[in-house]
Amino acid sequence: MIVILKENHDKEQFENLKDWLKSMNIDVHVSLGQRQTVVGLIGDTTIIDADLIRALSIVEDVKLVQEPYKKANRKFHPNNSVIDVGGVKIGGGQLQIIAGPCSIESEEQLCSIAESVKAAGATILRGGAFKPRTSPYAFQGLRAHGLDLLLKAKKLTGLPIVTEVMDLSQLNLFDDVDFIQVGARNMQNFELLKELGRMDKPILLKRGLSSTLQELLMSAEYIMSEGNEKVVLCERGIRTFETATRNTLDLSAIPLLKELTHLPIIIDPSHATGIARLVRPMAIAAAAAGADGLMIEVHNDPPHALCDGVQSLTPEVFAELVQQINSILPFACKYN
Amino acid sequence: MIVILKENHDKEQFENLKDWLKSMNIDVHVSLGQRQTVVGLIGDTTIIDADLIRALSIVEDVKLVQEPYKKANRKFHPNNSVIDVGGVKIGGGQLQIIAGPCSIESEEQLCSIAESVKAAGATILRGGAFKPRTSPYAFQGLRAHGLDLLLKAKKLTGLPIVTEVMDLSQLNLFDDVDFIQVGARNMQNFELLKELGRMDKPILLKRGLSSTLQELLMSAEYIMSEGNEKVVLCERGIRTFETATRNTLDLSAIPLLKELTHLPIIIDPSHATGIARLVRPMAIAAAAAGADGLMIEVHNDPPHALCDGVQSLTPEVFAELVQQINSILPFACKYN
Amino acid sequence: MIVILKENHDKEQFENLKDWLKSMNIDVHVSLGQRQTVVGLIGDTTIIDADLIRALSIVEDVKLVQEPYKKANRKFHPNNSVIDVGGVKIGGGQLQIIAGPCSIESEEQLCSIAESVKAAGATILRGGAFKPRTSPYAFQGLRAHGLDLLLKAKKLTGLPIVTEVMDLSQLNLFDDVDFIQVGARNMQNFELLKELGRMDKPILLKRGLSSTLQELLMSAEYIMSEGNEKVVLCERGIRTFETATRNTLDLSAIPLLKELTHLPIIIDPSHATGIARLVRPMAIAAAAAGADGLMIEVHNDPPHALCDGVQSLTPEVFAELVQQINSILPFACKYN
Amino acid sequence: MIVILKENHDKEQFENLKDWLKSMNIDVHVSLGQRQTVVGLIGDTTIIDADLIRALSIVEDVKLVQEPYKKANRKFHPNNSVIDVGGVKIGGGQLQIIAGPCSIESEEQLCSIAESVKAAGATILRGGAFKPRTSPYAFQGLRAHGLDLLLKAKKLTGLPIVTEVMDLSQLNLFDDVDFIQVGARNMQNFELLKELGRMDKPILLKRGLSSTLQELLMSAEYIMSEGNEKVVLCERGIRTFETATRNTLDLSAIPLLKELTHLPIIIDPSHATGIARLVRPMAIAAAAAGADGLMIEVHNDPPHALCDGVQSLTPEVFAELVQQINSILPFACKYN
Repeated sequence: MIVILKENHDKEQFENLKDWLKSMNIDVHVSLGQRQTVVGLIGDTTIIDADLIRALSIVEDVKLVQEPYKKANRKFHPNNSVIDVGGVKIGGGQLQIIAGPCSIESEEQLCSIAESVKAAGATILRGGAFKPRTSPYAFQGLRAHGLDLLLKAKKLTGLPIVTEVMDLSQLNLFDDVDFIQVGARNMQNFELLKELGRMDKPILLKRGLSSTLQELLMSAEYIMSEGNEKVVLCERGIRTFETATRNTLDLSAIPLLKELTHLPIIIDPSHATGIARLVRPMAIAAAAAGADGLMIEVHNDPPHALCDGVQSLTPEVFAELVQQINSILPFACKYN
Repeated sequence: MIVILKENHDKEQFENLKDWLKSMNIDVHVSLGQRQTVVGLIGDTTIIDADLIRALSIVEDVKLVQEPYKKANRKFHPNNSVIDVGGVKIGGGQLQIIAGPCSIESEEQLCSIAESVKAAGATILRGGAFKPRTSPYAFQGLRAHGLDLLLKAKKLTGLPIVTEVMDLSQLNLFDDVDFIQVGARNMQNFELLKELGRMDKPILLKRGLSSTLQELLMSAEYIMSEGNEKVVLCERGIRTFETATRNTLDLSAIPLLKELTHLPIIIDPSHATGIARLVRPMAIAAAAAGADGLMIEVHNDPPHALCDGVQSLTPEVFAELVQQINSILPFACKYN
Repeated sequence: MIVILKENHDKEQFENLKDWLKSMNIDVHVSLGQRQTVVGLIGDTTIIDADLIRALSIVEDVKLVQEPYKKANRKFHPNNSVIDVGGVKIGGGQLQIIAGPCSIESEEQLCSIAESVKAAGATILRGGAFKPRTSPYAFQGLRAHGLDLLLKAKKLTGLPIVTEVMDLSQLNLFDDVDFIQVGARNMQNFELLKELGRMDKPILLKRGLSSTLQELLMSAEYIMSEGNEKVVLCERGIRTFETATRNTLDLSAIPLLKELTHLPIIIDPSHATGIARLVRPMAIAAAAAGADGLMIEVHNDPPHALCDGVQSLTPEVFAELVQQINSILPFACKYN
Repeated sequence: MIVILKENHDKEQFENLKDWLKSMNIDVHVSLGQRQTVVGLIGDTTIIDADLIRALSIVEDVKLVQEPYKKANRKFHPNNSVIDVGGVKIGGGQLQIIAGPCSIESEEQLCSIAESVKAAGATILRGGAFKPRTSPYAFQGLRAHGLDLLLKAKKLTGLPIVTEVMDLSQLNLFDDVDFIQVGARNMQNFELLKELGRMDKPILLKRGLSSTLQELLMSAEYIMSEGNEKVVLCERGIRTFETATRNTLDLSAIPLLKELTHLPIIIDPSHATGIARLVRPMAIAAAAAGADGLMIEVHNDPPHALCDGVQSLTPEVFAELVQQINSILPFACKYN
């Protein structure tokens, strides 16, 4: 931590500050310039409240130097983490494809899609049982019954399953779920994160709509600091001023997170764009940039009467996409 | 809802769409132009999934016309709602000031601040017991013990109290809390909102860091649709590219929300700016623009050794601020 | 400037860096910690390219300590600057109101509005002759003829005038304009800024749609560094994710700029919100927060057939607004 | 254009509005619902001012239906445009690589880099002569002399050249420049755009830092509407709340622009990220997503003393990157 003092600061107050810092076992290095004094704090500065220091009348600014996350930090864990999800390895150099419907609607729908995506090359099945919806009047998911159907599809196909938990009171229903998803709106639901940190299950943590990468890593740290280090990160689009897409997919998160952390990174092009026609190019781009996995919605059938004309990512289009991904993978970026 | 069809769309598919819409009791009005066909859907379109329509290959775009919220909508409730918080009326034309420390630290700290802010003119006491912190290594609040101290301060001063709930599992501790706060990070914690909707207590709903005003109103609608219509909205800064302040306070939310909804609106200048020196001008601006209330952090003492030099909103500065607010109120904007 | 070195950095490269810095007359202060080395650079670091240092393989990060602006910096000019615009003082403690139509359309329109706003209390007349329009097919302004009409209105009313220049090739037409406006889209048109810096005329510099306050001050510095120190800053809304208003008015810019700079600050609530109904409350809030001036569009008449029903800021509504502003001013925030 | 009327609107005012619209040769289609009336305007609505209609007291909202750009619109020009830059075809199915130094510093520097990038596979040479810099104290480029050096490098290598114009007064120096760049900060410098529209030279138009794709296309339309249809679009990162990268690269712009327009799209990963280490993965991702070209900064040598340790995109790293791009191209997305 670096503290920049105001010009002409009160000397006695600065002595008080130094004494207090030393009492906290912080070494204080002072660099005197013409117009300003720069003070380097060396030691375990995580215990110092930067906002308190910044509020002192002798202080002009405080700059943080160390990343505030430890367990998620690549500096302390140089090798890539490989997370095992029901036998599927995420982060080990092979791109994993998670696919399935947005919402689970019926056994028939889910099982049909599950078999299709497995045949096409997906290695993990996704499906929403608890659905976060902006409107209270929208379909809220099949909830517990949806989880039952997902387990049936898992049994049928052998694919491990991932699905979203919306509140920690639901966790007792997730015993047989292989991979628990924390949605973007819950990325800073700290009580939920702590509870997930006490479980022994891989967690798929989605980046919040307006969360910085550092905040994403701090939320991973919440889970890891409680003991569960099986965290997979997911970039799914951030909120910007652009209205032509639902969100703006931030693919630079891949190489940047690969520097900052040892945790695997998955890209969700379906939620990021909100437009089925954009899913293919963004999935291809993510694979080329070296993502550890992709999470893709394969749409279920629309109402029969409308059936012919829907431009969705059908199982057929998904199968083509997987082939294109596979052809691009040998030339994709790699991170060790 | 308005559906814009592509030029040269398939006529049969359009007939299918019209039949399906009619089967849902939607009236269909077609306007034929040279280059495009515009279709107005009239009826209860809340049951129609706009994304499904938009995904049809004959459709170019879908535009929503009606606000998706009802109970929070001023159109259906033209008069201002007045919410009673332990005898204090919010929204009735009088500006209410909520004040207190960010975190509850001790009985002495809380009671001392509580008495000061009451003397200065605050009508509701705030204090954080459960603290949402970005870092798992930061102080997480006194939790249940903090609530006990808050109840003591309520007893001592007679002020109604407001404090934040972070998870629905904590709600059983909130029986004697007058006003339950939903923090910005929980604005779309839909399970929590639904549970609060089944309670008979006023709720202070803070706008999410990257939430539109419509999303804020949809979250209010979540609470109201379950039966609890005692919702107070709070603008506390949104996330933008500007880094000089922690967030950007959006004061235009006051007149805009006053048009869209009958619910009261409170401004929190402390969290919005993150800089104690900016709290006063932003509080004054909010009062002048016609806010129904202000929520202001009055800082507790810093560590003794640092005590003299902290530029915080001390009880003394707060008292001056209340006086300035009172002098400006007769000339502030009003909304009926 | 502070340079944070990587753990286990190459010692020889660090010696090279230190030698090079010393050759530039920079003092180097090294603070050695367990995990990192923090290097303070003391001296005139404006000549050091931070990006070059940051790109060195031994460097983890570079933090800037000094503000990069000098002439606009309050540290070096503690007293408020007062800018004289045709006899009207901006920044001297009195709030100035700039008013007039968005576009100049005819002599009759302009003169009628000019007389109304003068009668209501405006002290400077605005009117657009060169109009920046997103679409090439939209009305581009009366251009040179518009300036002629503006000069007529100035003669008629005695009000000093402000109008926007869009390109430096137009500047020869601005001889009799009292106050030259640089629009938000031109805030970083550096060739124009430099040319304005060589003039002896007050400049109204609007904040860019996605410009930080520091960038605004750097653009002011462009003008001032060429010799012209008569710069007035204008906040007119920034671009955010919120779509309910055209832009988000950032009123915290007032107290923040008052700390950072000695230049006066004007607020434009008309462009910030894009909604006539929101202009009044935002103008009142800005006045209460201590703005040095307001810039308000007073709308001209719509086509005759539509005349009755337009919700615009008519001269009548403007006159009421000025009265409300005047009543609030004695209680507004002040900055010395 | 669609106009939504308020419930219980004044019938006479609506008749006035309809009469006025008909006098402008607009057909008016009215759809009556229970709670609202939806009015479709059919005809050449580009002449109607939507803001004027929206300001009418009987109107609740106005929705635009047609894209406001014509010449840039793919609907009216279904085939991809191919732009010839000194013999190099952009948009014809082959990815073109523009490379060179950020700033031109000397003949030796420029020519050395030019020969290297040509050997590595670049087909167009870039180099900044006029440099837009946030600070007036930073190096502003070699200006006219820089252009001379660029022409020498063109002669030496035979590569066509692209460089940025900052003001229309500089255009007389650009006679022998093959491809004129409009920088992000000038994307809405409308006077410059119009002047470029009167030239017969390809223009590289960069997206503004906070510009929507529609605004980018409107700026292209400015150039095209004056006669010059040789426009190439460039995405170079947008401004968001994320601070870990200089900007956020929006790669979904590629497939989206390919739908909206027939103009070629180039990606600039160097400015988008601001971090040399991220250029490679973002360049690969852009190529995979189907960009028509890439624009990459190849760094010149840092000061001799610092030479060994700089992590920049040296000619060697650039050559490797081109090879990786070439291997991925056969599997990249295509747009016809």
